[in-house]
Amino acid sequence: MIDPIIYQDGILRLLDQRRLPTQRVYLECRDYQQVARAIRDMVVRGAPAIGITAALGVCLGAQELPEEDPAFFLQQLQEIIGLMRSTRPTAINLSWALDRMEEICKDEEGLSPPLIKERLWQEALKIWQEEKQINEAIAHWGAGLIKKGDKILTYCNTGTLATGGGLGTALGIIKQAYREGKDPLVMVSETRPYLQGARLTAWELKEEGVPHRLITDNMAGFLMQRGKIDLVLVGADRIALNGDVANKIGTYSLAVLARENQVPFYVAAPTSTVDVRIATGKDIPLEERPAQEVTHLLEQQIAPPGTEAINLAFDITPHHYITAFITEKGIILPSQLRLKLGPQNIN
Amino acid sequence: MIDPIIYQDGILRLLDQRRLPTQRVYLECRDYQQVARAIRDMVVRGAPAIGITAALGVCLGAQELPEEDPAFFLQQLQEIIGLMRSTRPTAINLSWALDRMEEICKDEEGLSPPLIKERLWQEALKIWQEEKQINEAIAHWGAGLIKKGDKILTYCNTGTLATGGGLGTALGIIKQAYREGKDPLVMVSETRPYLQGARLTAWELKEEGVPHRLITDNMAGFLMQRGKIDLVLVGADRIALNGDVANKIGTYSLAVLARENQVPFYVAAPTSTVDVRIATGKDIPLEERPAQEVTHLLEQQIAPPGTEAINLAFDITPHHYITAFITEKGIILPSQLRLKLGPQNIN
Repeated sequence: MIDPIIYQDGILRLLDQRRLPTQRVYLECRDYQQVARAIRDMVVRGAPAIGITAALGVCLGAQELPEEDPAFFLQQLQEIIGLMRSTRPTAINLSWALDRMEEICKDEEGLSPPLIKERLWQEALKIWQEEKQINEAIAHWGAGLIKKGDKILTYCNTGTLATGGGLGTALGIIKQAYREGKDPLVMVSETRPYLQGARLTAWELKEEGVPHRLITDNMAGFLMQRGKIDLVLVGADRIALNGDVANKIGTYSLAVLARENQVPFYVAAPTSTVDVRIATGKDIPLEERPAQEVTHLLEQQIAPPGTEAINLAFDITPHHYITAFITEKGIILPSQLRLKLGPQNIN
Repeated sequence: MIDPIIYQDGILRLLDQRRLPTQRVYLECRDYQQVARAIRDMVVRGAPAIGITAALGVCLGAQELPEEDPAFFLQQLQEIIGLMRSTRPTAINLSWALDRMEEICKDEEGLSPPLIKERLWQEALKIWQEEKQINEAIAHWGAGLIKKGDKILTYCNTGTLATGGGLGTALGIIKQAYREGKDPLVMVSETRPYLQGARLTAWELKEEGVPHRLITDNMAGFLMQRGKIDLVLVGADRIALNGDVANKIGTYSLAVLARENQVPFYVAAPTSTVDVRIATGKDIPLEERPAQEVTHLLEQQIAPPGTEAINLAFDITPHHYITAFITEKGIILPSQLRLKLGPQNIN
């Protein structure tokens, strides 16, 4: 049983994903600054998990605030939410979850600070709970696309670790297919520079007993050429209304290689990943991270001292490479995204 | 000055490429078994360098043999050559260099063992010397394709380290363009699992003072999509007569991504890399290496204990993805390969 986020007695415990798979250690956060740092430093990562953690971080921050002056209380809450927002730029879930928390801080009912704290907790727990239910629905729809014995390429980590305790998105589908007896063989792409595939996905699959093989990212294309991959299943950090997808760097390359080799390429994500304010992928902000993640591997230096590196954490996959989206509302074609999710959600 | 292979006083010193860039250590080989092991264990790697090292290894082996019985001498030489041939399967240069050494062992002139030893040394040194001249010619032709300020993506290591002391093939072109004042900016793809890009190419470019940026292999495609790469320059381990190329795993993916983004994709290699006995890439033997190279990075474990991995060391890039070959005889289109290099070389 993997429990990546635990809240108990005013302490938020985050399974330190930087230290997996060799160590299973929890980082204790006792205030919201620690939570913000944990998100920025990738103690916790994965779009849905970041959203949940940030929401819980706001609750921790609210707990610390004095309750005497309601106006000051609300103003301080805004600052806490602002800090949380600044931690990671690409995943929509972060701002989506914080939008929901902020809605409560508008305090349209004129509640007292203690009641607002209570409402914030309720909302954070609701976000967390909903995520798990959404994972179940995605797994249900996605597993229907898997045939017996399929060899499935997956990328980065989209499992329990990435979704704060649920089944996962893309990886949740694979687990569901395995539970249904479809005997999938999973090709786990290691996902440089941070190795979420090698460290986290391989670990989750081992815990679940799902057969898998680790590959380096540059092997995926040739395995497709040789007919060794039946479908590709990835997650998403943000989806534009036209279906362009921001996801872990390397996703775009896999999508091009999949189309070139007529391998279906599916993106599994909650509908909340669709950013209705953004028309195309060009408008999605993309995070660049420190060069050290490229010049070093974990703690080991792999390039000459002083080597300059580029560290793009995400890329954009244009919609025409995507076979379909697998959401909690069912399978959606990129061309249907605007129709199905756009109008009713636009503010 | 980089000197990857040094022979002196009966000892072959190989710059241990496994320990670069953090340590600059030579491995001393005093017999041919040590040389064979050094090739298999990748102390020395790179198609031309392997050929040179194997030829020198045959010479070391010959030195040890008793000279009394010429028939026994020649028979033992065949066994030494056989061992050298078995070290790595994909690079053609190994068998090409050993074919040249074997030609001498046929001893059509009925020479004495001491004279055969002498002839073997001469041939090995000739192979080594020719390689350097070929590098110069490739660099000359290739640099003509580079425009001022071009951003060049290169892969694996195709420099001095890979060619046993010459300028290099693909990397030699880049160095030449730099010397001609064309101010190239080199994107160095790290080249998992063995990190020849991060460890060796970045090191060579630093030694030469050529500006470069290290990237992970999965960033290359997105950089092309965003117009950050003007051309791709790679080497080759073996080329089929139809122009299909065996090269470091990941080359195929780069070629597909280059074509998708209308980025020219050049393969720089001596014409000896063309295997005239092989019609298409399907017939090129591809090496698989130990899983540990994928589950570990250098000495550091990156996946859970017991994780199974696939470790394909090479892939095949079909000829239609290749813009042109850059050889010592000039620029050759894939469609012209058979015409220009085929008939006169076929045995």
